[in-house]
Amino acid sequence: MIKGREIHLAARPVGEPRSSDFEIVEVDVPDPGPGEVLIRNTWMSVDPAMRPRMDDTPSYAPPYALGAPMEGAALGEVVASGVHELEPGSVVVHWLGWREYALVNSRHARAIRRVDLQLAPPEAHLSVLGHTGFTAWLGLFEIARLKPADVVFVSGAAGAVGSLAGQMAKIHGLRVIGSAGSPEKVSHLLDDLGFDAAFNYRDGDVMELLREAAPDGIDVYFDNVGGRHLEAAIDSMRDHGRVAICGTISSYNVADATQGLRNEFQLVAKRLRLQGFLMRDHLDRMDRFLAEATGWLRDGQLVHRTTVSEGLENAPDAFIGMLRGRNVGKMLVRLDGS
Amino acid sequence: MIKGREIHLAARPVGEPRSSDFEIVEVDVPDPGPGEVLIRNTWMSVDPAMRPRMDDTPSYAPPYALGAPMEGAALGEVVASGVHELEPGSVVVHWLGWREYALVNSRHARAIRRVDLQLAPPEAHLSVLGHTGFTAWLGLFEIARLKPADVVFVSGAAGAVGSLAGQMAKIHGLRVIGSAGSPEKVSHLLDDLGFDAAFNYRDGDVMELLREAAPDGIDVYFDNVGGRHLEAAIDSMRDHGRVAICGTISSYNVADATQGLRNEFQLVAKRLRLQGFLMRDHLDRMDRFLAEATGWLRDGQLVHRTTVSEGLENAPDAFIGMLRGRNVGKMLVRLDGS
Repeated sequence: MIKGREIHLAARPVGEPRSSDFEIVEVDVPDPGPGEVLIRNTWMSVDPAMRPRMDDTPSYAPPYALGAPMEGAALGEVVASGVHELEPGSVVVHWLGWREYALVNSRHARAIRRVDLQLAPPEAHLSVLGHTGFTAWLGLFEIARLKPADVVFVSGAAGAVGSLAGQMAKIHGLRVIGSAGSPEKVSHLLDDLGFDAAFNYRDGDVMELLREAAPDGIDVYFDNVGGRHLEAAIDSMRDHGRVAICGTISSYNVADATQGLRNEFQLVAKRLRLQGFLMRDHLDRMDRFLAEATGWLRDGQLVHRTTVSEGLENAPDAFIGMLRGRNVGKMLVRLDGS
Repeated sequence: MIKGREIHLAARPVGEPRSSDFEIVEVDVPDPGPGEVLIRNTWMSVDPAMRPRMDDTPSYAPPYALGAPMEGAALGEVVASGVHELEPGSVVVHWLGWREYALVNSRHARAIRRVDLQLAPPEAHLSVLGHTGFTAWLGLFEIARLKPADVVFVSGAAGAVGSLAGQMAKIHGLRVIGSAGSPEKVSHLLDDLGFDAAFNYRDGDVMELLREAAPDGIDVYFDNVGGRHLEAAIDSMRDHGRVAICGTISSYNVADATQGLRNEFQLVAKRLRLQGFLMRDHLDRMDRFLAEATGWLRDGQLVHRTTVSEGLENAPDAFIGMLRGRNVGKMLVRLDGS
């Protein structure tokens, strides 16, 4: 019997997660039954949206159970298979990360997807060609429905989704403004990713900083942050502006939020549309996204940065660090032995 | 030369408007030139959305100028005309209320619209068949896009727009929940307007009150209030819910808002859509609305209540009282001599 380690949720965090909220556990790895696939994970993703599922409150998916493994996107190699089309050696992405070995039931819709390492290295399939890139693409094209001449503002713009959203808007020839949390990240946006303007939101009042960066206003806001950033974006919005709400990371670690959106009337006055979205409602668009993103990647139009942590045991710290903004681009964990 | 009285904005209110923010002024009334129509106003409307225009901040229209007349919907009779199709005696609605005589330039799009008193009495053309009814209809059908089996929540439900929105949703066979600010208004919603459930938002925490009134959740929120009501609606929303934001009256008199939306992540988790709207973007739908609403009115399906104040000099108090919720249904002012 193979043994494998996995990360369990040991306690529900109050505010910022701590290392003690996680526990590393060694378990027996079962053989796959019919319809099941056993995967040795080599890469896993840590994403901001995992944080809300650590709370015991309604969210986009059931809360992670205490004493059970965390979940999240991962990439690995099939080592034993009860599914004809997924022979051992296949490289796949799936949703049972935070563990060395994952037993995935392939009958769940989109539970597992084979990837092509000829197109891009493994980590790209958890970022630019994976859920991160797809989320950026959906927010811009399906939710905000970019139009020619839109001015686009992206928050968390040096992060996994934001960095791709900003670049995709640039590929479409639009003016793009980004916010990030350090001078180095701001330089990265301007020098490496081609943003037209960028600011460090820690430098002052976000509303003022955005007004300076976008003196003529914005039409689209790709929101990864919420809170004061959303308020600032509404303030700078031109009539008929659209907000694609991908995440609200500023609220995730706040146990008792006391501040929120204070300029609601502008939603009426400017006839704004705010729309939250999740990838899983749009899976029929995945192939279209992959075709476009693969082309951009091949042509060098998309710069793809990762911040990599080594070893399953460091996944909690990678996750905590990502929530603090320690990453540039996609935060990933490479598992031992890959 | 005819003389007429008008209400000027004398000072910009801080918080709740006071009588001293208004001034009554007698002016000479000019004769109409080519393209102009002189109207003796007999009814005028006071609407919540006038409040934001009293501030010197960006809004859906330029702020009212200090020392100049207020503006708003009004109904009157043409007394002299420089426009062939609008002969003296025509009854019209237009946007230059707050004055006894209005000189309207008919060349501005939709500046003036002739109404048919055979269909309904004058006051109905400033409410159920006017901008109020049209706004209710747009919010439900063009913005929230009601679907069969939707559960609909309306705030400010005893007010001008809310009372019509709730009834229109009932006409479409949907379950409708309303909030209002007094026990009498709650009885009105339940007994006169056919709402399925209703609560007095002053009875406790709006979030709890709505959870009790809609234990299975809501799909559509017609928002006249904003603030805590919007937060509560988001809390009770089912997946893919829609919010039509018509107004945010809870914020209008708040000089320095410190509270606001605190559950933004639910916008993502539930994939909600919030959309602010203004009538003027949808004028091409006016004829369709009028055809439907006229039918409902004739069939007795729409109950239409007004709260009427007498005399131009009482318009400021009517407006201030409406912002305090003193009205049931549409708040109107009947001008002297009508």
